[in-house]
Amino acid sequence: MERNQTEELMALQDTLYFIGGKWRVPIINSLCNGNRRFREIERSIPGITTRMLSKELKEMEMNKLLVRTVYDETPVLVTYEPTPYCRTFGNIIQEMINWGRAHRKVVLRHA
Amino acid sequence: MERNQTEELMALQDTLYFIGGKWRVPIINSLCNGNRRFREIERSIPGITTRMLSKELKEMEMNKLLVRTVYDETPVLVTYEPTPYCRTFGNIIQEMINWGRAHRKVVLRHA
Repeated sequence: MERNQTEELMALQDTLYFIGGKWRVPIINSLCNGNRRFREIERSIPGITTRMLSKELKEMEMNKLLVRTVYDETPVLVTYEPTPYCRTFGNIIQEMINWGRAHRKVVLRHA
Repeated sequence: MERNQTEELMALQDTLYFIGGKWRVPIINSLCNGNRRFREIERSIPGITTRMLSKELKEMEMNKLLVRTVYDETPVLVTYEPTPYCRTFGNIIQEMINWGRAHRKVVLRHA
């Protein structure tokens, strides 16, 4: 194996590790689509549990993918804002959407 | 949530489901890089076990991502050839490599 294949594989595995799990990418996508409040994000991703979303948002805050802001209002308002870093996943997500669409057409054609 | 966000999310989740797990994408990448024999593929992905690679290759054959060919030689030669369908992941993989490279630079800068 050539040197550059090793380097490529490391970069690829870093990315896979970072977006690991089934929820991280849909949450990034939801934030990039403008959803800011917990319930909005939750509603935008059918099947995610409150507990799982809460856990992911905490991890994403630690990883600088989002900024959590608490506004001192009644009731308290909490928002989740994607960072520019979070938006660097835009190209990967767009390619995944493209692939999913094409794949769906293939499946439907063979059904 | 608008209609097109729901459709986008479905496409995205289809893709995530399809490339789920930590080994599928590195194996697709290895095949697309020209590795054809079991041991070649195995060597190109540090950390993968023989058992896991065997399981993945079987599933990928069922999913039409590769064609397994047995040549009647001594010793028996077996090759794994990526299908054109397998190569449709090229853009996603390239974007993941790009992201991983950029991410590594960010991490090194902050270390």
